[in-house]
Amino acid sequence: MTDLHTLLLRELGPEIVCSDEALTRDCSHDESEQAPAIPDAVVAPTDPLQVETLLRLAAEHRFPVTPRGAGTGKSGGSVPVRGGAVLTLHRMDHVLELDPENLLAVVEPGVTCARLQRDAEAAGVFYPPDPASLETCSLGGNVAENAGGPRAFRYGVTREYVLGLEAVRMGGERFDVGHRPVKGVSGYDLAALLTGSEGTLAVFTKLIFKLIPRPGEPGLLILYFPGLQDAVRAVTVLVQRRFFPMALELLDRPSLEAARGPGFAPPDDAGGALFCELEGLAGDEAIGRGVLDCLADAGCPPSGFELRRDPEGAGAAWDARRDVSKRLKARFAHKISEDVAVPRALLPELVRNVGEIADGLGLDSACYGHAGDGNLHVNFLTDKDPQGFLAAVERLFRITLLLGGTLSGEHGIGTLKRRFLPAEHAPAALAMFRAVKRAWDPLDLLNPGKIL
Amino acid sequence: MTDLHTLLLRELGPEIVCSDEALTRDCSHDESEQAPAIPDAVVAPTDPLQVETLLRLAAEHRFPVTPRGAGTGKSGGSVPVRGGAVLTLHRMDHVLELDPENLLAVVEPGVTCARLQRDAEAAGVFYPPDPASLETCSLGGNVAENAGGPRAFRYGVTREYVLGLEAVRMGGERFDVGHRPVKGVSGYDLAALLTGSEGTLAVFTKLIFKLIPRPGEPGLLILYFPGLQDAVRAVTVLVQRRFFPMALELLDRPSLEAARGPGFAPPDDAGGALFCELEGLAGDEAIGRGVLDCLADAGCPPSGFELRRDPEGAGAAWDARRDVSKRLKARFAHKISEDVAVPRALLPELVRNVGEIADGLGLDSACYGHAGDGNLHVNFLTDKDPQGFLAAVERLFRITLLLGGTLSGEHGIGTLKRRFLPAEHAPAALAMFRAVKRAWDPLDLLNPGKIL
Repeated sequence: MTDLHTLLLRELGPEIVCSDEALTRDCSHDESEQAPAIPDAVVAPTDPLQVETLLRLAAEHRFPVTPRGAGTGKSGGSVPVRGGAVLTLHRMDHVLELDPENLLAVVEPGVTCARLQRDAEAAGVFYPPDPASLETCSLGGNVAENAGGPRAFRYGVTREYVLGLEAVRMGGERFDVGHRPVKGVSGYDLAALLTGSEGTLAVFTKLIFKLIPRPGEPGLLILYFPGLQDAVRAVTVLVQRRFFPMALELLDRPSLEAARGPGFAPPDDAGGALFCELEGLAGDEAIGRGVLDCLADAGCPPSGFELRRDPEGAGAAWDARRDVSKRLKARFAHKISEDVAVPRALLPELVRNVGEIADGLGLDSACYGHAGDGNLHVNFLTDKDPQGFLAAVERLFRITLLLGGTLSGEHGIGTLKRRFLPAEHAPAALAMFRAVKRAWDPLDLLNPGKIL
Repeated sequence: MTDLHTLLLRELGPEIVCSDEALTRDCSHDESEQAPAIPDAVVAPTDPLQVETLLRLAAEHRFPVTPRGAGTGKSGGSVPVRGGAVLTLHRMDHVLELDPENLLAVVEPGVTCARLQRDAEAAGVFYPPDPASLETCSLGGNVAENAGGPRAFRYGVTREYVLGLEAVRMGGERFDVGHRPVKGVSGYDLAALLTGSEGTLAVFTKLIFKLIPRPGEPGLLILYFPGLQDAVRAVTVLVQRRFFPMALELLDRPSLEAARGPGFAPPDDAGGALFCELEGLAGDEAIGRGVLDCLADAGCPPSGFELRRDPEGAGAAWDARRDVSKRLKARFAHKISEDVAVPRALLPELVRNVGEIADGLGLDSACYGHAGDGNLHVNFLTDKDPQGFLAAVERLFRITLLLGGTLSGEHGIGTLKRRFLPAEHAPAALAMFRAVKRAWDPLDLLNPGKIL
């Protein structure tokens, strides 16, 4: 038992300060390649007042606090790399308001993304963001990372749905920012600044989300193409011709192989595929025909397609897609996953380079992700010595930035990409990042070692 | 000639430092009720390096700098209330990139909103934000104020279109923030923080905007209702039934009277109207029928309607709508205009209260604006002594906040609403606003006297 654990036990009580070894181990890692780090204490509050107390004590006693949603992050953001306390918000999991008339929801940070989606749909409304981990990831974590997902293509990322939030900063001050109406410009947009700040500026205790009317029942049109570049080209064609599916996901050949299973059997000759989720397709087959006609007309018809208009069939394919990352991890001894984004029309160039980088270093690769957004999950894979990974990632980042892209489309910087940050941002911008961090957390105690 | 003018003339030259009295007078005011203030000098750069120089000199010599777009603001944001230099960006007016394939544009801050819209449409793409002043307002000002407009209802406000920007902070450091891909979470979202910061944190020298594919040619369906509440109710009905027009604007009886003119003649018995801009209506009359059927089905049919499917007819009605503010100003000796927003379904309650407030104080009132967003431009009007205005505004803000609303949906806080800011934001939130301001501009020299 650490001194910190003893202190917190005295101040917050055994209900809140966890002595469970399994939970402590859980709180030592996320779902990235970041090495685990065991915290000195784990605090699981049920109330914002306990969050205030913890952050007041942390400032007084100068110990680090690492906030944690559900630990599904991909960049090491919730790993307590400097020890101290992990603040896990999974017990603050109430949906406080669901207001279909005003199209808004107020929730605690521990509510899962899927829970809000289901509650919203039951009320006839819709919460679009859908990271692959949606069944387990928390909305607090989604806002901290500004999570995306397939539906970001049509509906935008988490940020577009954060109207306001309640947060506690290091030192224990709690405050509200943002607004409940869909528009508001009263004061600085601190809700937007906190969204995507990776738990380094404040801890969320309440979130106000915008909802939208529920779209028509979607269906899934899976398009297979001879080569990956054909699939990538189809993305540009669809966007230019004003098709905006609810999702437009790309899978290359290795990703299709990883996705293969009882519910999903891609043809052997497909070099790439698009998952094209179409509003209203469940009730109207003609909607799928429109996409096929458009692609034929543009001279890039798919070599095959599947229409999955029933929720079960579509769900099985989506499950397979969401499991690609896990299954690639199981198939190869070593895997490193990146999350770069480029302007959409430059995706063919990015994809070509990924192939060249992997070939040049004797690695396997798999690319899948949100092609409609120019955001690709690039995986380098090997069963041999993974020492080529570093060069692969460096080359990937170099070409990404040359193409005007960014190191992370949706996973965040965390611990894993922080040393690459100066490659994307000039010293003057990094200085402003640091100035903002200092303004919120001058002692660098809140989620230290992340981003900067 | 002031000392400051002399200093700047020496450092920046007569090409950049303006000696024109008319321009100096122009730079003393915006389009709000804020009293004019003559600056000590006016600087009109053509290059970011000159902006750097000015902001370096300002920090060295400790003089205030008030950045200025086109002076069309409604909250006093560009009025140099503490003197010093006005930095007018109207000469930095180049469209640097227009890339329809990647759906992005890079512009200098002095480009007008309408210019970007026209250039985008000529290239087959679309820039949605459309503040009423779009023909003259600058994009730099739009980003500084996070401008809205009628089309925010379907397409969101300016913030949703800012991918990244180049800015110079007090002291002269220039930096880039944001990204060119549609998604990006690398570092703090400083582009989002700067959007809506009213020129108090940094001066924009370049803006990267997201564009979208050009929608089908719109037409305008004008719906007239017996009473204002009928029109407000129709908004909720349309949203609930998933009609998302490109714009959904409300006008009450006095606003309709003000809008009346050669191109727009509302029926005498209309108590309220909705301007419903529908994608594709120009080419397909049936699209208007869908809205009418929906309203009839919901038991709130309009008492009359006009279909304006040709650009000229629709344009004349929009011009009339955009001129309502100006015409109300011309009709009454005194006018005060607010810009509150509430959750959409509470609009009937807000509208009812506006009527009661005006009646109770013997004032006239006119309400119009972005009903689909719950964002209403509330005007109190009188030809007599305007001393009731203060009480009217205080009551309006009180009911707005009681309804969970915000003091400003799109015009900003500027000078005019800063003393009301503590009514909306708790001390801890205001403290964070100040901490952010200090991090960027510790000497309070950049647009001082605004927001805080």
